Amino acid sequence: MDAINIACSRPYQVLVGSGLLDEAGAKIAGVTGCCTAALVADDTVDALYGDRVQGSLERAGCRVARFCFPHGEQSKDMGTYVRLLNFLAENRLTRGDAVIALGGGVTGDLAGFAAATFLRGVPLVQLPTTLLAAVDSSVGGKTAVDLPQGKNLAGAFHQPSLVLCDCGTLDTLPDGVFRDGCAEVIKYGVLCDEEFFDSLQKPINEQREAVIARCVRIKSDIVIRDEQDRGERQLLNLGHTVGHAVEQCSGFSVSHGHAVAIGMAYAARAAFRRGLCRRDCPARIEEMLRLYGLPVRADWAPEALAQAALSDKKRRGGHITLVVPEAIGRCVLYPLPVDGLADWIRSGEDTL
Amino acid sequence: MDAINIACSRPYQVLVGSGLLDEAGAKIAGVTGCCTAALVADDTVDALYGDRVQGSLERAGCRVARFCFPHGEQSKDMGTYVRLLNFLAENRLTRGDAVIALGGGVTGDLAGFAAATFLRGVPLVQLPTTLLAAVDSSVGGKTAVDLPQGKNLAGAFHQPSLVLCDCGTLDTLPDGVFRDGCAEVIKYGVLCDEEFFDSLQKPINEQREAVIARCVRIKSDIVIRDEQDRGERQLLNLGHTVGHAVEQCSGFSVSHGHAVAIGMAYAARAAFRRGLCRRDCPARIEEMLRLYGLPVRADWAPEALAQAALSDKKRRGGHITLVVPEAIGRCVLYPLPVDGLADWIRSGEDTL
Repeated sequence: MDAINIACSRPYQVLVGSGLLDEAGAKIAGVTGCCTAALVADDTVDALYGDRVQGSLERAGCRVARFCFPHGEQSKDMGTYVRLLNFLAENRLTRGDAVIALGGGVTGDLAGFAAATFLRGVPLVQLPTTLLAAVDSSVGGKTAVDLPQGKNLAGAFHQPSLVLCDCGTLDTLPDGVFRDGCAEVIKYGVLCDEEFFDSLQKPINEQREAVIARCVRIKSDIVIRDEQDRGERQLLNLGHTVGHAVEQCSGFSVSHGHAVAIGMAYAARAAFRRGLCRRDCPARIEEMLRLYGLPVRADWAPEALAQAALSDKKRRGGHITLVVPEAIGRCVLYPLPVDGLADWIRSGEDTL
Repeated sequence: MDAINIACSRPYQVLVGSGLLDEAGAKIAGVTGCCTAALVADDTVDALYGDRVQGSLERAGCRVARFCFPHGEQSKDMGTYVRLLNFLAENRLTRGDAVIALGGGVTGDLAGFAAATFLRGVPLVQLPTTLLAAVDSSVGGKTAVDLPQGKNLAGAFHQPSLVLCDCGTLDTLPDGVFRDGCAEVIKYGVLCDEEFFDSLQKPINEQREAVIARCVRIKSDIVIRDEQDRGERQLLNLGHTVGHAVEQCSGFSVSHGHAVAIGMAYAARAAFRRGLCRRDCPARIEEMLRLYGLPVRADWAPEALAQAALSDKKRRGGHITLVVPEAIGRCVLYPLPVDGLADWIRSGEDTL
């Protein structure tokens, strides 16, 4: 088991290992001392792991109230959020209790936002069951739900009290969902660790615990320097500007990780064609993404992608801040006037 | 004009004076540098002051988008909150813009919660137009909406960037609404300033600017020592445990300030009957409340009030934390086992 200490405003631990779900109750009670645990999961994950986690919590003396919602991004909306708040109120959760998010990014974001805002903040424990949630969304305190106008438009910063990442849960992931996580893992390599990037030639699935721990460390190093996402933390958005646009243009039929893969490829190719990095940078990124069966191009016109991207929250006044690789392992923030975005996307359109 | 500096995690100013609404645009643009101002008001306040504030904002170069909702506590709900978030998204508000809350506590709480959560936080400016909002809800960063299960159950901490309190707006307040604010003013005297308490023998309406400034200073002193409401800040809840219960039992036909007056009177009488303060403490509080036409008793049974109070968020595990006066100007936190609450309320039931 690997333990990573996240030294943000309210420090917490991320534990990565096998069989952690069975120890969840004891570990959660040890940190939050919880009396009531509101266990939040989608129907798929609830069926797979709900009873196991409930049993573990009850053995540790917690009362468990289970909230189950239909799986899928469309549940990350205001309707499910309001139902979850009402559920917490009906179960009379207090600040001495805890919300437990058992699942992937949708569950973590949704349950996290409810925990952030119920009674103006109750403790949150993340039990990520997808690679993407393990390396990205469960750490760092960002929570959100979607609005009809765009993804993640309503949310809050709320650090978890504990993250337990049981690598065993990755065994039940469908291939496509596992690949979603691989895109984010590759992102960390491109962002700030060339050696780690190269190590991904060996399949991630054969080195899961080490890969997850490395990604969490990279993310926490960035997050603790910029908890409120005003500067450096925006680096974590590598691939996300075009990525979110692809998700939106596809009506969310392209999943988050696949969209981020496409976004990274666009960013790297555009950077090369504007003279900001050498050719080998997009070439190696494309190669690595393909190795994991990830897409590197989308069919929407640059204008359509730009328009979708500009409904995104990361626009600030008349500029949009892109993340651009200068080399594998080194990225920079790159402010671009809003009306230059379509051209920028076009320059990243064609694969090498 | 009086200026109070609030030295919390993100410092801001509270300006108290006459005619400030006409200077709002310049003062807001000076602080937030805003491009777009989302001006939020209920229909009553929008009709009274909306055009004046919009004109002032436009003269300062801001684009104004106006959101108007039906007046009344019943608008402080998830439905109005979701509509406001959608409005902000449709108007493509960014973190470089601002939400302006023009009105009383309902507007400040609702617009504040939307500002706290849209894009995980956009700047908020409070323009309180009631005495209660001026001395209480506009300062300190608490935002919330009600759930069917209770008041203020969903919310966030989000400090405003600026508070402009134009005393002229108090001229248009109905008597009952003005008295609501008087209850909170009296509360500050009971909490920590006997001299200020005694000064309220002179009508608050004849010393508005000084009274508001004094209350804001008292509140900010408490808030900056406990921004997240984990300890000392709970003192501000004097009168609120029974107060919230009265509001709920009455179906919110008893207004907040009137309910707090009742709650304060119960707290003081119960404290006296349990030997925690002398008789003159509840006597002087009752007398002062009556001087301002405020109620000091409610007709609901202690058991009904206790049950309503326990659906309140301030319960923590098996105890509830009450605020109890030891003397005029000195109050303490008083943890009580949950099942002793009805008896406690009964001991404060009978007037002196």
